[in-house]
Amino acid sequence: MTGAKQISTEQETREQALVDRVLRSFANCESARLKQLMESLVRHLHQFLRDVRLTEEEWKKGIEFLTEVGHLTHDKRQEFILLSDTLGASMQTVSINNEAYGNATEATVFGPFFVEGTPEVHAGGDISFGATGQPCWVEGTVTDTDGKPVAGARIEVWEADEDGFYDVQYDDGRTAARAHLFTDGEGNYSFWGVTPTPYPIPHDGPVGKMLEATGRSPMRASHLHFMVSAPACRTLVTHIFVRGDDLLESDAVFGVKDSLVKDFVEQPAGTPTPNGRVIEGRWARTRFDIVLAPE
Amino acid sequence: MTGAKQISTEQETREQALVDRVLRSFANCESARLKQLMESLVRHLHQFLRDVRLTEEEWKKGIEFLTEVGHLTHDKRQEFILLSDTLGASMQTVSINNEAYGNATEATVFGPFFVEGTPEVHAGGDISFGATGQPCWVEGTVTDTDGKPVAGARIEVWEADEDGFYDVQYDDGRTAARAHLFTDGEGNYSFWGVTPTPYPIPHDGPVGKMLEATGRSPMRASHLHFMVSAPACRTLVTHIFVRGDDLLESDAVFGVKDSLVKDFVEQPAGTPTPNGRVIEGRWARTRFDIVLAPE
Repeated sequence: MTGAKQISTEQETREQALVDRVLRSFANCESARLKQLMESLVRHLHQFLRDVRLTEEEWKKGIEFLTEVGHLTHDKRQEFILLSDTLGASMQTVSINNEAYGNATEATVFGPFFVEGTPEVHAGGDISFGATGQPCWVEGTVTDTDGKPVAGARIEVWEADEDGFYDVQYDDGRTAARAHLFTDGEGNYSFWGVTPTPYPIPHDGPVGKMLEATGRSPMRASHLHFMVSAPACRTLVTHIFVRGDDLLESDAVFGVKDSLVKDFVEQPAGTPTPNGRVIEGRWARTRFDIVLAPE
Repeated sequence: MTGAKQISTEQETREQALVDRVLRSFANCESARLKQLMESLVRHLHQFLRDVRLTEEEWKKGIEFLTEVGHLTHDKRQEFILLSDTLGASMQTVSINNEAYGNATEATVFGPFFVEGTPEVHAGGDISFGATGQPCWVEGTVTDTDGKPVAGARIEVWEADEDGFYDVQYDDGRTAARAHLFTDGEGNYSFWGVTPTPYPIPHDGPVGKMLEATGRSPMRASHLHFMVSAPACRTLVTHIFVRGDDLLESDAVFGVKDSLVKDFVEQPAGTPTPNGRVIEGRWARTRFDIVLAPE
């Protein structure tokens, strides 16, 4: 497991003896789960150090990086979550906790922009509440993994405006481009939103510097957030993405899953809308059929 | 490599696909070393998450813990270093960067209490400068790995007083229990210090909480710091420890190595001292022969 560099047997013995000593230090940990977490953390942390043969200068840079992340984290900025996101750790945690189940819709990252207490809209209503962007009709069904419609499922939706900002990123206290709605008796839902556009994660801090130093983009692929809940079903937190978006392969937080990429079909100006809404310019439409796993 | 819990093939595939996607994100990293570090970090981080099947609640607690560590870190308190120390990561880094070489003396952690610009003492001089504690005579030689004496080697020594505090932990700007000296033409050195006593690392923060939750002690085994440098030799940063100290097996930062545990022999009151110093009560003596690896 050690790197390419040749290590003497005596050196190997010393390094492994240290790992064993650290592991033994948790012998009196009363919580079996905490003990398991710490032991696994120590094993992987030490194996990382040994695999890369971390230099003392690199260790120091690591400490400085974490210090900077800590100092930038406050009430309105969570740089540690951003770090977890950009290393794929948030997405992996989502994946672990939303295990594949039949044809249930895949989950993805929650993100920092969800807000409790959104307005309700009815079937075909407009969640944009003035948010800028191309109007986008979204429709679909909610079913269980047996294909049975789920009536009355609660759907929370939220998204950025065409400038890439969520309502909460403005200082004026607006509520826009977010709402909740319910499926009808046949499990159908529909609403008007805006066509998602890409935006960067906050990248003026140490995480942004890490992305730049490693040749990565801070951009998130265009997406629309969903949280879907219903009795006896596992709550689904997910997004849908826009087929053809250049950023699908390089989403900064690794939220994209192939099954969540949808066709957003542009409609020429003047095309009649599904519910008679009058729109002067172009609009788009998409379909997202949601399958909920059992609880 | 995954934990005991049974994971479906589809779930395994999804989790591994995510790891691969994160690894690919570093494809454009210009620095080969940074790329290697990030890839190894990602591999071990994700394997940790997958091995323990981290829950979303645990992930959140991890973020909160790191946030607390970040907020406690400032000019005079480095909680991230303390975290690295208490997970054995600092000691493992020392170990990796001071590879076993013949009979060269083993290195250990540097610690946060070294100060540049210490006073010089001559052979048999007193480094305590008023620090409280039982007088302790320390002597030895500095040689290279061929057994040849190293003349003029610079030895920095520093230690806590009998209350477990270093001079820099007092507010009065004192310099005490630290100095530098040089070996003579035959590689010999000697000085008076104080017999080391145990003390806790700062444990009123999140790292202290982690130690408590896992049933660990915040105490460091009694020790005396050395930093030894000479032309053409690898600089040695180490401590010596006190044989018989109850804390040797549970040193909070894993600094103890068997080869660094020394006999500190207590002398009855009235025993003549090696260099004629008059001491009313008991005193101790120890010997530390130092072997420097080549640069």
